[in-house]
This record gives sequence, C-alpha cells and structure tokens, in this order.
Amino acid sequence: MNQKLRIHAEKAVYTAINEVLPEGAVRRALAGRSFPGRVYLIAVGKAASRMINAALNTVPVIPEDCIAVSKYGHFEDAEKAVRCYEAGHPVPDENSILAAGEILRVTESLREDDTVIFLLSGGGSALFEKPLLPLAELQDITKQLLACGADITEINTIRKRLSAVKGGKFAEHCFPAHVEAVILSDILGDPADMIASGPVSPDRSTFKDAVSIAEKYSLKLSDQAWECLKTETPKSLSNVNVQIVGSVRELCKAAANACRMMGYEPVYLTDLVSCEAREAGRFMASVLKSHSRDGKNLAFLAGGEPVVHLTGNGLGGRNQELALAACEGLRGVSNAAIISAGSDGTDGPTDAAGGYADGDTYDELAKAGMNLYSVLENNDAYHALKAVGNLIITGPTGTNVNDICIGLIDAE
Amino acid sequence: MNQKLRIHAEKAVYTAINEVLPEGAVRRALAGRSFPGRVYLIAVGKAASRMINAALNTVPVIPEDCIAVSKYGHFEDAEKAVRCYEAGHPVPDENSILAAGEILRVTESLREDDTVIFLLSGGGSALFEKPLLPLAELQDITKQLLACGADITEINTIRKRLSAVKGGKFAEHCFPAHVEAVILSDILGDPADMIASGPVSPDRSTFKDAVSIAEKYSLKLSDQAWECLKTETPKSLSNVNVQIVGSVRELCKAAANACRMMGYEPVYLTDLVSCEAREAGRFMASVLKSHSRDGKNLAFLAGGEPVVHLTGNGLGGRNQELALAACEGLRGVSNAAIISAGSDGTDGPTDAAGGYADGDTYDELAKAGMNLYSVLENNDAYHALKAVGNLIITGPTGTNVNDICIGLIDAE
Repeated sequence: MNQKLRIHAEKAVYTAINEVLPEGAVRRALAGRSFPGRVYLIAVGKAASRMINAALNTVPVIPEDCIAVSKYGHFEDAEKAVRCYEAGHPVPDENSILAAGEILRVTESLREDDTVIFLLSGGGSALFEKPLLPLAELQDITKQLLACGADITEINTIRKRLSAVKGGKFAEHCFPAHVEAVILSDILGDPADMIASGPVSPDRSTFKDAVSIAEKYSLKLSDQAWECLKTETPKSLSNVNVQIVGSVRELCKAAANACRMMGYEPVYLTDLVSCEAREAGRFMASVLKSHSRDGKNLAFLAGGEPVVHLTGNGLGGRNQELALAACEGLRGVSNAAIISAGSDGTDGPTDAAGGYADGDTYDELAKAGMNLYSVLENNDAYHALKAVGNLIITGPTGTNVNDICIGLIDAE
Repeated sequence: MNQKLRIHAEKAVYTAINEVLPEGAVRRALAGRSFPGRVYLIAVGKAASRMINAALNTVPVIPEDCIAVSKYGHFEDAEKAVRCYEAGHPVPDENSILAAGEILRVTESLREDDTVIFLLSGGGSALFEKPLLPLAELQDITKQLLACGADITEINTIRKRLSAVKGGKFAEHCFPAHVEAVILSDILGDPADMIASGPVSPDRSTFKDAVSIAEKYSLKLSDQAWECLKTETPKSLSNVNVQIVGSVRELCKAAANACRMMGYEPVYLTDLVSCEAREAGRFMASVLKSHSRDGKNLAFLAGGEPVVHLTGNGLGGRNQELALAACEGLRGVSNAAIISAGSDGTDGPTDAAGGYADGDTYDELAKAGMNLYSVLENNDAYHALKAVGNLIITGPTGTNVNDICIGLIDAE
C-alpha cells in the first residue's frame, strides 16, 4: 500500500465530511441574520436534532417555539428548549401525523413579520405528514413505492399529492409569515422540491407526472388516492427563501479544498454520479492511469450516489465496490490511489464508510487469496477490503449528503 | 436535436479519425528519414496494404523487396511493387505460414547496415506465423483462447510462445540488420509487445504468466505445447526502433485539437476506457451535466474500448450503447451533447460507427415510441438511434485505433 496516498486520501475525505456536518452548515446559513418579528424554529428530518441545536446557538433571539421531528432514537443530545418528536421512517406512522399536527398548530395564524426557520434534512417525507387519505392507505402506497424500484423523485412526486404539508403546502400554511428554509440535500442535483418532498418549495412536478408514475409501476390505489394525484400543487410561493447548505456539491468543494491544501491540483469531474458503482470505479481508474505520467499532483473529484445491483449475498456497499473495482485498472500504477466514502459514514449494511485502493491493492488481494471477480460477483467488497486493510471507517457522521470519490495522483 | 452541437461533434470525430489513418501516420513516422544500406519493406496486419503504399511513397529509396500480409480481400489498391499475401484471421492458416516463410527468407542473412522497415497493425498475430507446433494444434489452441473469454493480452502471451516469429523473435531473426518498426496500436495502453504479439518487441510477459493463463482457462495442450509455453522469450533487443504512430491516444489528441479549433476548451479524461459501455455513457453524462452551467465551451475526451455484455438479441455496438445510455442523464440539458464512435467505422455488427445524444434525445425517443430501458435491455441501440436520426455513419475507415467519445458543452 502507498502509505502517503492512503493518508492523504483519508485526510481529504475526513476534512470534506467535517465541512458539511449539520452544525457548520446551519451556522453558515444563519450567522449574522436578524429577523423582525417572532421566530419559530422547526426542524424535520434525520439531522433535525443537530440542525436545531446549531440554529438555537446561532439565531440572536429566543424563539417563540422550537420543535424537531426525527427518527426514533435520534435525539440523544437535544437542547432543553427543543420539543422533540420521534416518528416512523421510511414509512410514516401515527407519530408522523402527531408531530405534523403540532407544528401546523404552532405555525397557524402567524403575522407577516414572523419568521419560521425551517431546517430540513433527508427523511422528512416520512417523519412529517398530514395525509389526505387514511394513514393505512398512505403506508400501503409508501410500501408499494419503496418495493417497486421507483427512484426518490418518482416516490416523492406521488407523496406530495397525498399530503397536506408536502409539495409547498406547508409554506402556504405559514403564509403570511416568512419561511427561511435551510436544507441539507440528500438528492443528487439538489432539487429543493424533492428533498423531503419539498414542504416549502414550489412543486416542479405535475399531476400528469404523478399519474404516469402510478401507471408505470401499476400502483394499487383507491379512488380517493387517484383523486389526490390529480389535484395540482403550488407552482409559486412568495413567502419562502431557500438555502441549500449541505449537499454533495459542497462535499466535493470541501474535498477539492482539502486536496489543494495538501498540494494536489483539484479536477472537478461531477457531483452527479449515478451509474453502477463498480463501473464508476473502473472509469475513475482509467482516468487516473491515463494521467499518472503527467508529472503533476492531481486530485480528481466525483460526487454522487452510484448504485449496486446485487448478484450475490456478500457484505459491502456502493463505495466499497467502487474502490475495489478500481484496483484492477490501477494495478502496478505506483503513484495513484482512489478513495470512495459515504458522507453518512455508513456504506451499505456495514460499519465502514467506504474503501480505498491503489496500485498495490490488486496484488495484495491475490496474496490474501482473494479473487477480484468472485468478490465482486458475490458483492463481498467488505471482506476483501478488510483483508488488505483498505476499509475506511469513520463511524456514523450525523449527515447524509451522498458520496465522495477522490482519485489522487502523486507526481513523486 | 441541438443541430450546432451535432455538427460540431461529428466534425470532431471525422477530423480525429482522418488524423490517424494509416497513410498520414506512416508518412509522419518515415518522412525525412534516410537509411544507409539496403531497405526492405515488410507490412503485416489489417492495415498492411495502406501502410506499405504510404511507406513506398515516403521512403527516399527503392526498396530491395516489399512484402505485405493482410486479411483475405484486403488488397484492392496495392502498389505494383508490393508482393501481397492474404491469410487467415483471427485463426492462422496455411497462408499465414507461407507468408511468414517468404518474409523470413527475404530477411535472412542481412548485413548490419540494412534496414527492415516493419509496418505492423492489428490482426498480425494470425496473419504472420511460423508455429513451433503443428498448425492444426495452433489453430485449436487459438480457437480455445478466442472462446474462453481471455483478453487480448492473455491470448498473445500464449501465442508468443508457440511461434518462431512472435515475442521479439522476428527481430532476432533480422539481426544484425536494423529494424525500424512503425506500429498502429489497436490495444489500450499501446503495449508494443502485445500488438500483433510483438514480433519485434522485447517480451514483457514471462513463461510463468503463460502457464498461469493456460491453467486459468484450462486450455487443452499437448506435451509439446506445454514445453513451448515454458520456453522464455527475448527480454531485450538491440537492433530495433519502435514508433507507435496511430493509437487511441493520438485519436484523442486529434479530437482535442479539432475541438479547440471550433472554440471548445479540451479536457482530456482518459484513453483507457474499458468499463461497460452504457455505464461509461452514464458517467460521461454526469460529467457533462455537472459542467453545463460553468459558462465555458468545453470538450471532454475519453478514448478507449468499452465493453458490452449482451443480454438481448437486438442490433448495436459499444459506441451506440454508450451514446444512447447517456441520453437519460443529459435529458433537458439544452447545451450538452455526447458522441462516441469506433475509429474503424464499424461499431458492432452494424453499418454505423457509433451514436450521438443530447438533451433532446430522451424525449425524442419517447415520441418515437422507444423505451430506453427496453432498448438497452435488448441491446438494440442501433434501431433506437436510427429512429431519431442519431446514428453516426462514416463507412469503413481503414484503421482501427479503438474508440473516441467526446462530450461537448456549449456555453451559448
């Protein structure tokens, strides 16, 4: 293993993830801001606890009320001022409705100079809900959507129309108060209207989109649900300001800065990787090998969320497969390395955030008795990377803004 | 379709392929050179006819002899001075041995100041052969290697050891004469010792490699063949100068120049693409979309030879799949386009060299009643691209230096 590249690669990933943690992101969004009337802090999503704590410590006034909704068990360190609700995810439950009911009550009949600071992160679609049809049917449709292979944009296009708070409708409810939205994005391309089904963003999808998705996946829907799908959502909102503060683009920028500080010239490729993880790894290896004799220190950055189609029953995750698959193309290239990690610190059902590979990894695997093809066929990247000391382990980070892959070249 | 991008993309591909045609490549390699003693022109490979014609018109002396070996039917326009041999490909036949015999006879007992100008292109492994075991067994082993999934490097590592002319042994035969080799590369990374099994290049593979490949694919070999595998090949040659004149790297450089002339800033990614074609297309689409708002005219260049794993029985090729698969990621991006084409002008078993896609292609396919997923599942890119006018058709070009993919962004 190239120890120097390994240390630099890990350092770049750690630094980048630290930059996009909820605390810093919320602080940067709200620092120095003042608000004329009463302030209400509302946080929804998997990072709600950390976002609302950060907001409480940043906003220069004592809020009228602070409510946060997150997943069960996600409130270890909530500030005393915060009223915490725990609810179901990824399928909404009674507590999702209870939490939303309380938030709707508090934000009702506000005045024009009041401000709702709305702190949104991934998972909000399930955690914050006032359904327009019976909960049992909403749960059933959610399960159908999660099982049918629909992507998050398709799922949320349906969800918006079955809800009285999604698709911009929560912002309408807050009117005439101002909504200052601070959003951590967990969807590629940062579509504000799709993150947590966009409670405070004008909906860019149409009822026609919703109907065609329902038809595409042959969803089983009641007449009432069909009626909901055919009802249009708000297309403009006058009382909202949205800041997307944490996203895979920010993660890439932070990684680029970290690499620059270590003497690498960053080359930003993309923040929209969504292809097969192992093929992304192979493509990245081609790029690295092609540039390995340029005589420059280079850092190629590719953010996104690649996918894995399971063919085996091994242990692994998309970042581990990406790094592992790159090792064949990097074989024998002494001055190049690749690292890929999930910003949430949890890659697939493993305790690793991702993996690392360099020009020695292929032969090290062979020495450890591992055959690359069998490992990939069995989706068992975790055990292969573990055998050669190439797992990246950060522990859960408290944020989720997709994945970062960095390819380093050391001119030597 | 974005007509401007389509025209620019096609122009870049045409210009790049023209730059790496055998005539220009050979001319650049030999122009202005002089040779002290007698000159012998020997050409082996699929481009032998065009290479030897170009050499005849460039070298400032009348050669003592001119011999070319190519595939059956590849000698339409050979110059009169050239003695043409046609032989079997990809499995060698009696004529491969006949041709090699004549070349060995002519290049025997040369003097130190004589020069053998050796013009090599892809396909030479089969066309030029003096086997160290009976032809029938060599043919059988070649067929086993072609059928078992071995890559070209593995196949040629075996071939070198079953032959008296491969793996540097032809250069040894020519000693003490000087061998001036001019090579068109059809293998990624331009490994001179692997192109046409490297008749004039020191062999970087070892007999251990050969044995492990034979074991990996469970080749059925006679005792005589096993003995051949275990015999070592020349590791250094003092009488050879090698110029690789046409290669996918040259193709990329030519494409970069063509794009620069049209006002695009070239960004060279790689010349070693070898991953799944459709995933390379998706990765390229991510790169293009991520840079589509940079406000610059950009041209991303990726050369190589991606692969297709057939799952259906449609019509297509790797370049067509690459371009087609990119259209989903490019959907709605009005100022980006991708083109991918094989430099030989023949992509898969079709009359197209490759395909084109831009931000409109996805919706144009839908209008034409095509579903992208079904088309890819059925490996039927040809018919889909044809339906929307996105095939790239050049006709056979007479060269083969792998594929070029260009992604264009027009700042507008």
